[in-house]
Order: sequence, then C-alpha cells, then structure tokens
Amino acid sequence: MELTTTVGKVIECRAAVAWAVGEPLTIETVQVAVPLTGEVRIKIVASGVCHTDLFFQRGGDGPDVFPCILGHEGAGIVESVGPNVTSVEPGDHVIPVYTAQCYNCEFCKSTETNICNINGTFQLAGLMNDGTTRFTCRGQSIKHNMGCSTFSEYTVVYETNVCKINPGAPLEKIGLIGCGIGTGYGAVVNTAKVRAGSTVGIWGLAGVGLAVVMGAKKAGAARIIGIDINPSKENIGKKFGITDFINPDDYKIPIEEVIMDMTTGGLDYAFECCGISSCMKAAMNACKEGLSVLTIVGVADLTAEVSYNPIQLIYGRTIKGTYFGGWKSRDQIPKLVDAYLAKELMVDEFISHTMPIENINEAVELIEKGECLRSMVTF
Amino acid sequence: MELTTTVGKVIECRAAVAWAVGEPLTIETVQVAVPLTGEVRIKIVASGVCHTDLFFQRGGDGPDVFPCILGHEGAGIVESVGPNVTSVEPGDHVIPVYTAQCYNCEFCKSTETNICNINGTFQLAGLMNDGTTRFTCRGQSIKHNMGCSTFSEYTVVYETNVCKINPGAPLEKIGLIGCGIGTGYGAVVNTAKVRAGSTVGIWGLAGVGLAVVMGAKKAGAARIIGIDINPSKENIGKKFGITDFINPDDYKIPIEEVIMDMTTGGLDYAFECCGISSCMKAAMNACKEGLSVLTIVGVADLTAEVSYNPIQLIYGRTIKGTYFGGWKSRDQIPKLVDAYLAKELMVDEFISHTMPIENINEAVELIEKGECLRSMVTF
Repeated sequence: MELTTTVGKVIECRAAVAWAVGEPLTIETVQVAVPLTGEVRIKIVASGVCHTDLFFQRGGDGPDVFPCILGHEGAGIVESVGPNVTSVEPGDHVIPVYTAQCYNCEFCKSTETNICNINGTFQLAGLMNDGTTRFTCRGQSIKHNMGCSTFSEYTVVYETNVCKINPGAPLEKIGLIGCGIGTGYGAVVNTAKVRAGSTVGIWGLAGVGLAVVMGAKKAGAARIIGIDINPSKENIGKKFGITDFINPDDYKIPIEEVIMDMTTGGLDYAFECCGISSCMKAAMNACKEGLSVLTIVGVADLTAEVSYNPIQLIYGRTIKGTYFGGWKSRDQIPKLVDAYLAKELMVDEFISHTMPIENINEAVELIEKGECLRSMVTF
Repeated sequence: MELTTTVGKVIECRAAVAWAVGEPLTIETVQVAVPLTGEVRIKIVASGVCHTDLFFQRGGDGPDVFPCILGHEGAGIVESVGPNVTSVEPGDHVIPVYTAQCYNCEFCKSTETNICNINGTFQLAGLMNDGTTRFTCRGQSIKHNMGCSTFSEYTVVYETNVCKINPGAPLEKIGLIGCGIGTGYGAVVNTAKVRAGSTVGIWGLAGVGLAVVMGAKKAGAARIIGIDINPSKENIGKKFGITDFINPDDYKIPIEEVIMDMTTGGLDYAFECCGISSCMKAAMNACKEGLSVLTIVGVADLTAEVSYNPIQLIYGRTIKGTYFGGWKSRDQIPKLVDAYLAKELMVDEFISHTMPIENINEAVELIEKGECLRSMVTF
C-alpha cells in the first residue's frame, strides 16, 4: 500500500495556505513533518468549507493566526502515528475535530460538558504543544488552525482530536459531521434538549442552521420556524423540516413581534446560527415566558456584546451556548457517522458543491454570497 | 372560636397602606370583603418585609400599583373560604404565595418550571379576576400586591396561591419561606442544581443571598464566596456557610479578577442577589469556562439591560433566572416547612428584628440602610 512508503518521512503535498488577513488562499506545496508523541498524521480526502474558516481568513481572530492552513470539516485516513498513540493506527478512517476528548480532565469526567481544554492554549495559537508547527512552506513555518488544518492533503493533529469512524462511511462527505452538522444537530439534542411538540425558531438557514432544523424535526418539534433574509432558503429549509419561513425583509415590525403574532406567546426554543448580535437579541425577545431556551450557536465577533433584560430570565428564559453541539468528540462522533449510515441523519443533502482544492477560493466566495449550503473541497 | 363570627361578613382590621410612590406606609383601618369563588380569606399572624416591597414602594413598577397593601412573606390561619375552594378550610395554617400552582396549565404540567400564569394579568395589576379588589380604606378601593398583601391583618387571595402547612410551624416566622428563603434556597437546588464540591459565588448577602449560601452549603459546595460591600456581612455570612468573603470596596481591580485570582479558573455557579446590572455582568465574567451557571435571583429595574459576550456562552456558560426558587408552590412549600421543623432548614437565623405592624416604616428603613437581615411585622 502506497501509504507506508511515507511513514517516518516528511511528506510534500498540496495545501491551501492563508498568508495574511483578507487575502485569498493560495495553493502551495507544503512539507508536513512526521507526527511526534501523541500526534497522528492523516491523509485528508475531502473537507467542508465552513463560515468559521472565513471568520479567521477575514481576521476575526486577529492577524496572529497567519500564515496558516485553515479547514476543520475534513475526513481522511491515518497515514502514520507518533509514539504513544494507541487509539488509532495507519489505515483507520477518521474525522479530526477541533474539540478534544482527553478522558482525563475535569470536563471529560463530567457528563454535562464536552469542553476539554487539553492542548487548548496551543491550539488557539495555531501551534502544537512544543510551540512549533508541523507545516512548512517556502522555508517558512505555517501555523495550524483549530487543531485540524484540513485544507492540506496531509495534516498532523493530536490523537485526542481524532475520531475513528466506520470505514464504510464516504470520506468525501462525512467530514461535515465534524463541525457544521454535528454542531447544529447537537445544539438541539444535547444543549437545548428540545421537547416533542414544542415551537422552535432558527435564525440563519446555512449549514449549521439547517442541521438545527434537522435536529428539531427529529426531536418532534411541532413547529419549526426558519428565519433568513435570503428568500431561497425557504424551499431549502422545507426539505430539512421547517414548517414556517420568515424573511425579516418582508416585515416592517421587529421579527420578535412577527413571531409573537404567529405563536402562542413565543418560542419554546430559539437558536441563533448567524453570529449576529442583533439576531441574538431578537431571538431572546421571541422566547416564551415560563420555560424557554435561547441557544447561541453562531460565533459573533469576539468583542460582541449582547444585552438581555434580567426580568426576561427571572420569568423562565435561559441563555445557553453550544460548543461543537455538546458532543464528546471521540465517543460520540463515530455514533453520528453510524446514524448517517443507518439513514437516520442527513449529510448528502448539505452538500451543494464539490470542487478540487485548487478552486477553494470559489468555495469561499459562495459562502460570502450565501449561494451554497456546504462546499466540499477534495484532494 | 372567635374566627367563625366573621364568616360571611366584611372584616375591619389594621393594615399598612402604600398610598403613593415613595411615601411612607400608613397604618389604616381597612375593610376586607368576603372571599368570592376560588378565594380564601386569611388572618395574617406575621409577615416579613422584603426588598421587593421597597421596589414597589419606591415606584419600581410605576405609579399604577397604588394605593395598595404590600407584603408577600406572611403566614396565617384561614378565616373563611369562598365557593368552590376545596384544598383549604377555616382553621388551616397557611402561607399565601405570589406563585400560583393551578395544576392545569401548561407550566404546572411540566416538571421543568414553576411559573404558573393563572390569574397572572390581574395579579400584576393588583386586582382580583373580576377586576375589583377586596380592600377598601376611607371609601377608596385599595389594590392587592403580588397576590398576597400580607401587610394587612386579614387578606384575600386565590386558593391557587395558598400553601397549607404543618400546624406545628411557628406562624410568626415561617412566612419567610414564602419568598426570601424559598427563593434563595430553591435557586441553588432547583434552578442552578449546584453540584457537590463546586465553587460558588453569591453577590449580595441579604436574606435571599444568605438563603443561597445555606443552599450551597447543603448541596456540598466546597467553596462558598460571599460578595458584599457591607463589611458586617462577613461574620453573618460565615454563620450561614460562606468560606470566603470579598468586599469589592477593598480592591482596586474588578471583582471578577479578584475571583479569578482566588479560584481555579472562576466560579462553577454564580448567584446575583442584588438586582444590580453591574453585579450581573461581573458575575458572568467570574464564571468558569467549560461548565458554569449564572443564576439571576435579584430583581433589577424592569428596564435594565445587562450585556454578555456571546463567546462566553459558547464556551460553556449558561445564564438562568429563578422565579420563587423554582418551587411548585402548593406542592413543595409545605415540604420546606417540614424540613424546617426537622431542623434541616434555617429560618430563625434570618430574623434580625421583630416589631408590630405599627412600626413597619422602621422595618423599611432597616432594609434601606442594610442594617437587618429580615424584619418580621406582627399583628
């Protein structure tokens, strides 16, 4: 098998490199170092392009993340492993994810959170824990991103972030479970815990929002209201399960008033998937007195501030956030893949475009214009 | 028994009437009408004076609540009942509470909320459901308040708001369970569900805050940090279970930084019992990444706005509010009374002053100056 010939050697391969804030990604030949202790080198088959990649590319987390290799919705095959790696071996099919599961920390031992902070500081800085990176391009060290960097044909990640999945799953699609689908679906079933018969509102019907719709339908919500300023999302939303569609541009009154008029006292569950402060505020205002939950799913500017009126909370409203949908990554992502294979979870329907990595800027543009659900880039 | 002589008749008795925003209460002779369908007339033995009474008295809910009879922490004996009342009868010892439990509404049927909205609109307006009141003074109709009006020797409330309690409980004290103690204790055990071993911070060590401390101790919190600008609260807090005390006036840095310095990454649970926006913000900032809950207990100005940074929530923080501590009133308040009788719940320790109703303005002043825990006014 060809893969074995690369073990223990630096690999040269293609990657899309983000050199600086706002600049288009460029396809480069990069060198990918051998995995060190606890690290896994993966041959990526395909990767989704997520709005969060744009967030970084546009400088949302500042200039220090550059130069880097973005991408965190990929799937592939383990090429080789560093010392002390025990949970995967070469040839395993895997999804690398930005949420670690170390099994040892306070949070991994809790059943109530999936936020494992192992490697977190370095992951945020785009480095491995020795303070260096495994990517080089034109003699320059290239940073990792979100602990995944799946816009490279080969990447190196920590074993704690590698989910071993059923080899029967299509690697050209299944990476989407590692971010957008997992996040939206988990926000419903793990974070908000939507009850059957309830009324749900979703702000933003892009990939994550549609995964929320899918989750709400699965949870037995009686009414699923999609909110988006893109009118084409009405038909797409209906394929995933929305029962009502609101285009805020069609109304002169605030969207929360529209929702109050069409429901009995408001939403039982609101999900904000746009990352926009004003939508978060509207979503809170649309929540029902007594027993309702707003779940923040979209990532806003890191300095954003959203206000609430404290009496809204006293009267039975809760505000939560979801981090990767609350999934314990290594334990639960493989189960979501199995659910997909059992036709209990949609994945194919999220993919609107597939293109080679060379065309990645086209995929970025499609997100910017809101003209895609998810684009997959392939190697 | 003397009580029976009043059945079916208007009762004349003493009450403290709030005539207008900001004016001292005045002791008046009022006429209390006979209870109509679903209503219960109660002889109040004693009532606590709560900060929320001040909120109304100062005009926090506007001028429309006046003239009214405040008070909602009382206990007494049923004098007579109107038609169709089945759950209590004359002679029963009861605590009337502002939180109804009708057993029939959507919320009463849910195990997840105690916010029953029966009678809610009229209760907010200070009226019974026929749009009138049961109090008259000097020929003028006097409004109810919070569905209780326990600053009157006799009051009329809905059966849905009457908790029948163990007759062995001391009526001169036990009314406190009907608001302050119930709210603070329930915020811990019902709303936030504090875990054993956790680190808890409480803003404001007045009656409600000390009940939070009591709850946190009972829940097995390892560290209970009390925050108050009144230095005398340090010793009082220790009697209830605080392990650390912070007086913000002693520090030049924000209180959240003080807490970060003295804990491992912040609080697992924060409780805001002051009703002050800046404290709510500080409490959120003091919450730990991964798995923490801020519970809003104090009632702020109804127009207050408090901001959060959405990424704080994405990283595992939740903001909740508590309404009467989450207790299903008629089912659960009697159990709290039993817990007190079994010496599992502190009540006596909350009472710093006892005085006749005639001195009620002194009790109000003690709260304004922060010089009391709870004052009981007696008839």
